[in-house]
Amino acid sequence: MAHVATVVDRYIDTWNETDPQRRRAIIAETWTDDATYVDPIMSGDGPDGIDTMIAGAQTQFPDHRCELTAGPDIHHDRVRFGWRVVSPEGTTVFAGTDFALLADDGRFRDVTGFLES
Amino acid sequence: MAHVATVVDRYIDTWNETDPQRRRAIIAETWTDDATYVDPIMSGDGPDGIDTMIAGAQTQFPDHRCELTAGPDIHHDRVRFGWRVVSPEGTTVFAGTDFALLADDGRFRDVTGFLES
Repeated sequence: MAHVATVVDRYIDTWNETDPQRRRAIIAETWTDDATYVDPIMSGDGPDGIDTMIAGAQTQFPDHRCELTAGPDIHHDRVRFGWRVVSPEGTTVFAGTDFALLADDGRFRDVTGFLES
Repeated sequence: MAHVATVVDRYIDTWNETDPQRRRAIIAETWTDDATYVDPIMSGDGPDGIDTMIAGAQTQFPDHRCELTAGPDIHHDRVRFGWRVVSPEGTTVFAGTDFALLADDGRFRDVTGFLES
């Protein structure tokens, strides 16, 4: 079973990895084949859908970086962590909290994002 | 489909309702028959397990009240809200955030609680 904090770090890396092949490799490390992601503005199903979703976000916000800001808080097969997206100028563009359900092997099988207002 | 904010309010009521019959009635209103709850210190499966869990918490913390402190934030079939438990003297004993998955009829089918440190 993968260490959950490592999976969370790699998950954040996924959002920052703009090389398509490397991004797909990180997605395979951190998500199960039937994984789903949903937040108020986007969603993705399975590695293909999640990759397309992240590539779209990177196109819309070029050179922005995602950073872990809180957690991860882990209990049972549940994880919570805070994150923010920072512009090249250093401004926080979005901040949110993700809740993840873990598969038996420690990878994410379902992630819900909430945006902080 | 029940209004989600109402279900959240009734969920908070469940934790405060010490009359066993009324508590069971609120649980039936707010949770599906196969619902599960888990936080770092307790868990309950189905209406019986959830009722037993809440009755146990009430025994351990008599005359404490649960209050909604933030949200609910709702998107798709996902809800997040903040809560706290207040002693009879007005002290906040616990504070946390719950994350719930909704069934098609708007009731909770899975709730994860996280405690604020």
